[in-house]
Amino acid sequence: MVDHKVYRASTFAPVNIAVIKYWGKRDASLNLPTNSSLSVTLSQSDLRTHTTASCSALYTRDELILNGSTQDISGARTQACLSELRSLRTALETSDSSLPKLAQLHLKIVSVNNFPTAAGLASSAAGFAALVRAIADLYALPASPVELSRIARQGSGSACRSLFGGYVAWEMGSADDGSDSVAVEVAPASHWPDMKAVILVASADKKDVSSTSGMQATVKTSSLFKERVEIVVPQRMSKMRAAVQERDFESFAELTMRDSNSFHACCLDTEPPIFYMNDTSRAAVRVVDAINEAAGKKVAAYTFDAGPNAVVYYQEKDEALVAGVFGNILEEKEGWQGERGQKVQSSQVPKGVEVATEKLKTGVSRVILTGVGEGPIKTDEMLVGEKGETL
Amino acid sequence: MVDHKVYRASTFAPVNIAVIKYWGKRDASLNLPTNSSLSVTLSQSDLRTHTTASCSALYTRDELILNGSTQDISGARTQACLSELRSLRTALETSDSSLPKLAQLHLKIVSVNNFPTAAGLASSAAGFAALVRAIADLYALPASPVELSRIARQGSGSACRSLFGGYVAWEMGSADDGSDSVAVEVAPASHWPDMKAVILVASADKKDVSSTSGMQATVKTSSLFKERVEIVVPQRMSKMRAAVQERDFESFAELTMRDSNSFHACCLDTEPPIFYMNDTSRAAVRVVDAINEAAGKKVAAYTFDAGPNAVVYYQEKDEALVAGVFGNILEEKEGWQGERGQKVQSSQVPKGVEVATEKLKTGVSRVILTGVGEGPIKTDEMLVGEKGETL
Repeated sequence: MVDHKVYRASTFAPVNIAVIKYWGKRDASLNLPTNSSLSVTLSQSDLRTHTTASCSALYTRDELILNGSTQDISGARTQACLSELRSLRTALETSDSSLPKLAQLHLKIVSVNNFPTAAGLASSAAGFAALVRAIADLYALPASPVELSRIARQGSGSACRSLFGGYVAWEMGSADDGSDSVAVEVAPASHWPDMKAVILVASADKKDVSSTSGMQATVKTSSLFKERVEIVVPQRMSKMRAAVQERDFESFAELTMRDSNSFHACCLDTEPPIFYMNDTSRAAVRVVDAINEAAGKKVAAYTFDAGPNAVVYYQEKDEALVAGVFGNILEEKEGWQGERGQKVQSSQVPKGVEVATEKLKTGVSRVILTGVGEGPIKTDEMLVGEKGETL
Repeated sequence: MVDHKVYRASTFAPVNIAVIKYWGKRDASLNLPTNSSLSVTLSQSDLRTHTTASCSALYTRDELILNGSTQDISGARTQACLSELRSLRTALETSDSSLPKLAQLHLKIVSVNNFPTAAGLASSAAGFAALVRAIADLYALPASPVELSRIARQGSGSACRSLFGGYVAWEMGSADDGSDSVAVEVAPASHWPDMKAVILVASADKKDVSSTSGMQATVKTSSLFKERVEIVVPQRMSKMRAAVQERDFESFAELTMRDSNSFHACCLDTEPPIFYMNDTSRAAVRVVDAINEAAGKKVAAYTFDAGPNAVVYYQEKDEALVAGVFGNILEEKEGWQGERGQKVQSSQVPKGVEVATEKLKTGVSRVILTGVGEGPIKTDEMLVGEKGETL
């Protein structure tokens, strides 16, 4: 008799934004990076992927549905994740024959983001973290988040960091098989809970170059990149760990801004050059510089991923000084209603950034207020019904 | 009896645009650079400074008038040039007592650019080259252009390269006193006369950071800069010399574009970051990339100085392929009438750069068509009259 049961597990997984950037692979098929990186996991009330993994004898093929659209899962990266997870389940089933034989069933995975995928907000990181976490739960794997991070890394490099909340390092590792290229917790969100961020979503043209092809072009052609990965980043990684341990925002800010600029400098040093920052991004840099200048110390830190959006970190106590300035400049834009419905207190724009201020008004489409948050959270909210139907 | 004669000499001096960039001083007061650089001297029919140097017992002070405005010449840089030139004249007068005692007379220097000073077109290079060359002629100094380049360097680093026409290297030198930090001819204009350039003058906001303060900030704070000056530029200098010697435009183009990008990468890696390229500059990069892609080889090479203007080098035989594309995109702008009144043949814009094309239309204010040209040229056209009056 065939078991027609639909096995299901569901998770929420967060976005993370690196403060020491991942850029460049030493092994493209295993997604092994040229340098370690460090990120802040962002709150899931603002940005998250919700994923249900299910398996059943009813299914006739593996399937992944993201935001209502069936995705191509034949790519090596998705396949690597599915096959690693199935192997772990098979091992479990072998050691305990009472377990249902889930590894041999087809999977149906349904995933929904609570933010626009196209906005360039690290959706693939949250996506692969959620996929791996949900299937691990479905399979009841005893694997630790570190072990799961090794699997998620193969889907999308930065996804490995979304297996943890708080402050997370992705250790580049040295093994050829990538077994030691995993994410580890540097500190939980509770260690430094008042880390906040305002994201300025830029009205972008199409992305200049995909990060996958862009980073390999940098590895191949940039003559400055070697210095970055061999000398600059290792030093920054240890300083950034210390800054997080000591909740030293000034060091955190300086390292964050320098590393973002170093990453984009290497993009510019690529042949042909890659531009992710645009005039709007540069205007955000100038306003952050002016905020810090006015405060007489670093109270704000910008960082830019492979796109023009500015993520500006600050501490909650400086909300008026930082988010308040952007709130003043961009008060007409969507996104100022925080999680608790409160409005950021508007504060005066520092002098000398009139041109940048105008540029932000025309170049920013919306804002997102967020802060450090937790890792993946198991949930009973299912996106697949008991009969295998998409809900 | 006092000699009331007004001694005069007049010169035209050219602008030069580096293809291996000067950025960073190892000695700020002597203007000694952290790396050698190489430039193309541009034709004086398009861009030049016209300077008359005069001296007379009628004058009561040293004076410099640029484009009708009296300039402050008390700065160390101008003073260094004047005092070096006077020393050489004094030595001459000492060795031949029949010579008039010009070194002890006050100087009146009148200078006019045939292009807008504010456009960010290396006006200080042409300006100091003209000043030094005109005074050297006034003093009848037997000094070679190499020796004069050592003096002009102290006024404005890149000015030393404007003492020569054609293809010019500024050797960084190693002596503490700067005696071997001079410009030398790599090849005369006649060696490779078909080098042309179209300059896209961007409608800029105020310059982000002056190059003088900007380059010192880079030296101090950029963690990638050391690699550039110690490893990257020395390799490129020797390759660029070879490219010029062999008239190898493809190598010339690749090195030119890479070095421009490397320089701007180091600006971005500065704390706080320096941005000279803007969205218009980046659009020019994309169009040049597309022109080269369509040609199947490098027929065009962009380079950007400390500002958003693109200088695009190409060979005369490729005028339609390169200038013709910009002529099509920017046909409404001023500047397409070349020296001989001819119009550039318009040619089809490559596909895929529609966004960049629109950006250029709004961001470029005018164009300048030019090409490789000669060094300073002595002239009888005086800007100071026989009685010392400004003409």
